[in-house]
Amino acid sequence: MIAIEDHDAVRTITLDRPEALNAFDTALYRAAGAALDAARSDDGVKVVIVTGAGRAFSAGQDLKELERIASGQAYESGFPALLDALCAFDKPLIAAVNGVAVGIGFTMLAHCDLVFVAESARMRTPFGELGVPPEAASSWLFPQRVGWQRAAHILMANAWVSAEQAVEYGIALERVPDGELMDRVRAEAAHIAAAPLGALRAIKTTMLDGQRDQVAAARRREDRAFAVTFGFDPAVLDD
Amino acid sequence: MIAIEDHDAVRTITLDRPEALNAFDTALYRAAGAALDAARSDDGVKVVIVTGAGRAFSAGQDLKELERIASGQAYESGFPALLDALCAFDKPLIAAVNGVAVGIGFTMLAHCDLVFVAESARMRTPFGELGVPPEAASSWLFPQRVGWQRAAHILMANAWVSAEQAVEYGIALERVPDGELMDRVRAEAAHIAAAPLGALRAIKTTMLDGQRDQVAAARRREDRAFAVTFGFDPAVLDD
Amino acid sequence: MIAIEDHDAVRTITLDRPEALNAFDTALYRAAGAALDAARSDDGVKVVIVTGAGRAFSAGQDLKELERIASGQAYESGFPALLDALCAFDKPLIAAVNGVAVGIGFTMLAHCDLVFVAESARMRTPFGELGVPPEAASSWLFPQRVGWQRAAHILMANAWVSAEQAVEYGIALERVPDGELMDRVRAEAAHIAAAPLGALRAIKTTMLDGQRDQVAAARRREDRAFAVTFGFDPAVLDD
Repeated sequence: MIAIEDHDAVRTITLDRPEALNAFDTALYRAAGAALDAARSDDGVKVVIVTGAGRAFSAGQDLKELERIASGQAYESGFPALLDALCAFDKPLIAAVNGVAVGIGFTMLAHCDLVFVAESARMRTPFGELGVPPEAASSWLFPQRVGWQRAAHILMANAWVSAEQAVEYGIALERVPDGELMDRVRAEAAHIAAAPLGALRAIKTTMLDGQRDQVAAARRREDRAFAVTFGFDPAVLDD
Repeated sequence: MIAIEDHDAVRTITLDRPEALNAFDTALYRAAGAALDAARSDDGVKVVIVTGAGRAFSAGQDLKELERIASGQAYESGFPALLDALCAFDKPLIAAVNGVAVGIGFTMLAHCDLVFVAESARMRTPFGELGVPPEAASSWLFPQRVGWQRAAHILMANAWVSAEQAVEYGIALERVPDGELMDRVRAEAAHIAAAPLGALRAIKTTMLDGQRDQVAAARRREDRAFAVTFGFDPAVLDD
Repeated sequence: MIAIEDHDAVRTITLDRPEALNAFDTALYRAAGAALDAARSDDGVKVVIVTGAGRAFSAGQDLKELERIASGQAYESGFPALLDALCAFDKPLIAAVNGVAVGIGFTMLAHCDLVFVAESARMRTPFGELGVPPEAASSWLFPQRVGWQRAAHILMANAWVSAEQAVEYGIALERVPDGELMDRVRAEAAHIAAAPLGALRAIKTTMLDGQRDQVAAARRREDRAFAVTFGFDPAVLDD
């Protein structure tokens, strides 16, 4: 479900559920969150790469599970576990977007420090279509990252964002030919990992602290809106 | 003064004072604010388009009225009524900038979610020239929308912004040939209006809530600076 | 060490320590801070230009002094004096980046309103390499000015930013051929100085007030991280 590979001080975490296009069910949310927490605690790890196995980065929330939550058959989601781990991650986090990124597969990119996208990758949020509120603090992070109008367009109109647009909008730092993606990302990760861990932690932590309160507040607002949409108490969303 | 037209769940509000280039006097401020409030309360309306009649979007504050306020002959302005309505608007708001947009005609665009500009449109703030402070929370919203430097340049140097620059700067999402503007905007509005109203409200509200306090604080600062400039109590600006 | 030149209401402050590439030691920090404070207090000055003498804008922190601070031989730095003056500067501040800008020579640009870069200029932060935290509120200002990803890349990977990239990223408003830099900057400054001082102050102050708390908080976090890195109490960094 999750593959881990270390190369010097760079750890690669691969979402490895390719038969479901790496869609997040409770188990994958928790496994990904636990992998990030472990990488954070391990002083041998300076930089983390997140990528997906197969042709997708992640198809997002497992919709079968969303249906069970929406219908009251399931009362918990692993979603907060992944989000908490992303928000707490105090080392450089690089995303290698190897293919399609939908929903949380897209919104989690706003929690990564450097995003590299394969030329064939594309991303999309289906919130309007599914009739659900934004998630993962995207209601605040997307306006910050891509500007209000592009954020509104992505969130309200559910348009596909191409790899080229991702760079133009500031979602991604660089677009890379599909076959060269991992080499490019590993080279950048190794370059950053040459710095002392203390300095990297100080840089990332001071950056994160500048948005911590707003991200937490956005998550609370979105959770409340989600609960209102589905008619239950927001507390059931807690892990 | 204001023309209203509904097409399915999309309402178009047209500033209709073309003989004055749709400049805002007290009556137009209030009529526009009331039209937005009515559209917000009407569950049959999912998306609103704002545009101008004739060759201008809006020439901004009616300067004759500004002179009366500055000289103490008038003690109230409709300005806060429009601003309050913009800040409270919890549905997708699209601006179709059909022509020149000056002052509040420009600054109100930072309160819209998607802005489409006709190729011949251009925009400008005259604050430095007129010797007045920024307005409509533009002192905070412009740095957020277009970056600090372009905001400083727009606010301090009063430069004209072309339709092409508006897109480059992130003021507008898209530039459209003049004759095709309304068709393009209506198509986008109809596309967004396909989503459930609840989801659109949740997206817009969670986005707005992420900037509500900062926008309110910026308005208070600007109102105080305006009162200081003209030597009267800020309370007289209240509606 | 500092050269001052007035032309009508425009004051040019030149960092004038070319033999050290205008690197900041305690004396230059304080002289630059004092020059900004004096320009702020002087009602004959409407706009200030900051530039560097010789081929560099500024090589940043004087490294010999940093070593003395890090080793406990020196217990104070002029750094806060410059930063306080930048944060308090309530008139338009224009940077003419005539050459290389490193460390504080780069991060101080995020405190300027309009930045013009000579074609041959380039900029860089060496924080990761030196093993030190970000400074001058860059942990918050850089994400605001250039976006999270480019900020992370600049701060973590220490990459050189070219004049062309500076404009593309939003660090600079305009790139100018080397020999034309000062003429271009002086023309823009004179244009802005045509506005009344009161309006310029109102514009700049309302803009600054919108980020004052976040900048102060970022400086406190960075100072703490710096103290932790070098194992002493943050109070010694105070001027």
